[in-house]
Amino acid sequence: MKFGVVLRTLGLISIIISATMLWPMGWSIYFSGPDIPAFLISIAIGVLGGLLLMFFTRKCNYQDMGIREAFAVVTLSWVVASAVGGLPFYIGKLAPTYTDAFFEAMSGFTTTGATILSEIESLPKGLLFWRSLTHWLGGMGIIVLGLAILPFIGVGGMQLYKAEVPGPTPEKLTPRIQQTAMLLWGAYVALSVAEVIALLLCGMNFYDSLTHTFGTVATGGFSPRNASIAAYGSPLIEWVITVFMFLAGTNFVLHYMALKGKLSAFWKDEEFRFYTRFTVITIAVVSLVNLGLHSGDPVSKVIRDASFQVVSIMTTTGYTTVDYAIWPVAAKFILLLLMFFGGCSGSTGGSIKQMRIQIMFKRIKKEINQLLHPQQIMKIRFNNQVLQPYEVSSVTSFVLLYVMLFVIFSLVMIIVSGLDLVSGAASVAATLGNIGPGLGAVGPVMNYGFINIAGKWILSFCMLLGRLEIFSVIMLFVPGIWRK
Amino acid sequence: MKFGVVLRTLGLISIIISATMLWPMGWSIYFSGPDIPAFLISIAIGVLGGLLLMFFTRKCNYQDMGIREAFAVVTLSWVVASAVGGLPFYIGKLAPTYTDAFFEAMSGFTTTGATILSEIESLPKGLLFWRSLTHWLGGMGIIVLGLAILPFIGVGGMQLYKAEVPGPTPEKLTPRIQQTAMLLWGAYVALSVAEVIALLLCGMNFYDSLTHTFGTVATGGFSPRNASIAAYGSPLIEWVITVFMFLAGTNFVLHYMALKGKLSAFWKDEEFRFYTRFTVITIAVVSLVNLGLHSGDPVSKVIRDASFQVVSIMTTTGYTTVDYAIWPVAAKFILLLLMFFGGCSGSTGGSIKQMRIQIMFKRIKKEINQLLHPQQIMKIRFNNQVLQPYEVSSVTSFVLLYVMLFVIFSLVMIIVSGLDLVSGAASVAATLGNIGPGLGAVGPVMNYGFINIAGKWILSFCMLLGRLEIFSVIMLFVPGIWRK
Repeated sequence: MKFGVVLRTLGLISIIISATMLWPMGWSIYFSGPDIPAFLISIAIGVLGGLLLMFFTRKCNYQDMGIREAFAVVTLSWVVASAVGGLPFYIGKLAPTYTDAFFEAMSGFTTTGATILSEIESLPKGLLFWRSLTHWLGGMGIIVLGLAILPFIGVGGMQLYKAEVPGPTPEKLTPRIQQTAMLLWGAYVALSVAEVIALLLCGMNFYDSLTHTFGTVATGGFSPRNASIAAYGSPLIEWVITVFMFLAGTNFVLHYMALKGKLSAFWKDEEFRFYTRFTVITIAVVSLVNLGLHSGDPVSKVIRDASFQVVSIMTTTGYTTVDYAIWPVAAKFILLLLMFFGGCSGSTGGSIKQMRIQIMFKRIKKEINQLLHPQQIMKIRFNNQVLQPYEVSSVTSFVLLYVMLFVIFSLVMIIVSGLDLVSGAASVAATLGNIGPGLGAVGPVMNYGFINIAGKWILSFCMLLGRLEIFSVIMLFVPGIWRK
Repeated sequence: MKFGVVLRTLGLISIIISATMLWPMGWSIYFSGPDIPAFLISIAIGVLGGLLLMFFTRKCNYQDMGIREAFAVVTLSWVVASAVGGLPFYIGKLAPTYTDAFFEAMSGFTTTGATILSEIESLPKGLLFWRSLTHWLGGMGIIVLGLAILPFIGVGGMQLYKAEVPGPTPEKLTPRIQQTAMLLWGAYVALSVAEVIALLLCGMNFYDSLTHTFGTVATGGFSPRNASIAAYGSPLIEWVITVFMFLAGTNFVLHYMALKGKLSAFWKDEEFRFYTRFTVITIAVVSLVNLGLHSGDPVSKVIRDASFQVVSIMTTTGYTTVDYAIWPVAAKFILLLLMFFGGCSGSTGGSIKQMRIQIMFKRIKKEINQLLHPQQIMKIRFNNQVLQPYEVSSVTSFVLLYVMLFVIFSLVMIIVSGLDLVSGAASVAATLGNIGPGLGAVGPVMNYGFINIAGKWILSFCMLLGRLEIFSVIMLFVPGIWRK
């Protein structure tokens, strides 16, 4: 491990994160908010700290970055971003302790959307804008990570997407990342602009449109309103956000291709077809289950609520328009399951991801056929390509590890935080999958504020694990990686 | 599919099951119980039905049995055994409906131990003996299935045990099964005799010793006492049963080798080592968690209860000495997790099984190392042999399918039976894993009597699925298999 280049990059990250705080500070000034000093102090600390790191590592060369360094930089970037990004929350007294501030920032940058706040609307607008902006920055980071870095270091089957975008070579990671990043960010910004315009047209004000767009396209879920999207009471806004959440859960390479005019790319993509079909079927099932609830709601509202909540949880956004804690047990169970599906690979959505779930179904189907025809050689295909055994294997290991970590951390949370079985498991499912709201004590109208200090650090770690496709984080705990 | 040979075998099964009812009828006569007519009628129906089936298929040859026929016979044997074996419960009015009778018999033959009964001790002794005997017969069946049939048709990685025992060739399944069966049954009977003697020495009467032995060595869990093993209030009996449950969860090939004097076989077996270590560690963790309960129990009782309950749930037996529903959430969560571990392969224990869990850990470990050293070729070893990719793959597909079915049936049970989330999931975990008691509404001091008719059939199907290693049952739903 070449520590110099890692530290130098982290210094740069600290400076970039601090610099982006100028935008929310602009809102503070516009609203003459009490949060201006919080930003000034935070920016000063972040920039100074970053400059110091870069000064001490000034002799290091970015060309030295190999696989090991890349793993370290990826994981520690999110940690540094949250450590620096949490400063305004702590200094601005939005969070009672630094743990809470770090939790909120990590929840932002990992696009989770789990919050420690109960009363939101009375807080300074600048801090709330920063809270939402962390989503958008985290979303930018994850698209580059998922499509331009992970495929080339072979994490959890992401190598399947290697061919889709120009990427770096395994030996020297840096040279082509920038080029790829620009293309994908173009698609990300375009989608964001489209949503801001759509929300403005629905009558939402500019501040709310921006913050909700950040929360949507990053599949984050932070809202500056106490009641989340339900605050507007507007079916139109709910449908618009449903559509954009669905698009945010789509592979951004497809958006990039659509921008170049190749709209057919969507339906040609096997993962997108699976994602679409699965979404429609699940909405239908949840609507049917909820129709039996006899709540007196018109069918259109039942379908709208089901669509919004299914898409919100499955894409790992976590916005709410309804308190699904009062839904029938079966509907809640389906939402809990959806927490393990996530968006498409290469989207801003977290969790296991559609492609991996789809490949799991394929391998089970193959196994059954193989038993019937033991002599026949059977292959698994994905997007018209035969998958290599090592590819299927790496996808499978990811799924197994994901489920294993979910189980282990649920147990840890139950022991450490004294949560009940459902709340404990849901808190881990909702953070490991970067969703936000869970069930029980961490349900849609609840928050994470009451969880004890140790529990908050554990859940912060779960968010990091889930966001960085687990392996990138776990690598840092393998003794071999730190060797010089 | 050659239906003749399948039907002929099922006819034979019906006659054998009916004939074994003579043993419990002996107890009925001994106790001058009211249940003698129930047995006479049941035996008459079972034998006549069996003879009719065999008469109509008298021209069929057992040599015709191929893979497809074997799958059909295996699954339908358990169905026929439960259908015929449930007759005495229904006719003897132990079960209020035939659904309940079938559920109880399926629970017996699959060595699950989930019961519809709340008041047991007042019931006729003959019927209760039959109830326990179904466990013992089911256990006999499963040992032959797990070690002499499944390894040769390659279900879920059981082929790893192909080399351990003499077995049939894939083309003609029948010839050598008998020989293997006799060897393994020898070990099974020896273990049973040892436990009966041990329990008699502890002061248990002969009837109770026999029935509890059936429940233990088959990892079943039915008891003729309302309070299960707690009824005796004897630490010695609890420890004896703990040890025999542990042994019943061990591969019977190892017992067979031990009988031949090769005691070292136990520790040479990698699965047995994993199973032992894992059991000890889990007992320690559960004891520690429960010590925090401040129940005032002495440490020796806390350890004894933890040992009994951990071994009982993990080996999928399901006997209870304590109401674990009042244990801390963390301890209950651990028990819920143990439901997915099960016994060793080739034992009477159900669920996923130790070997498969162990291989899952190995593949995750390999995946992490592979990321660190992408060029290196890494292999997974088990019992000093390199596993072939198709072997690892078939074990993995089993685990994935198991978890998938658990999730699907949990949802179905929640919808169909209106159970809450934990009870619904636990009812499926406890039946699919052939354990018996679950959590919540189907907890250790509860029973399955209250579940609606549809729910009982679904859970009966789960028991069958779990017991026959899933694939054997699923094969029958693949259209291709029924073709002539």
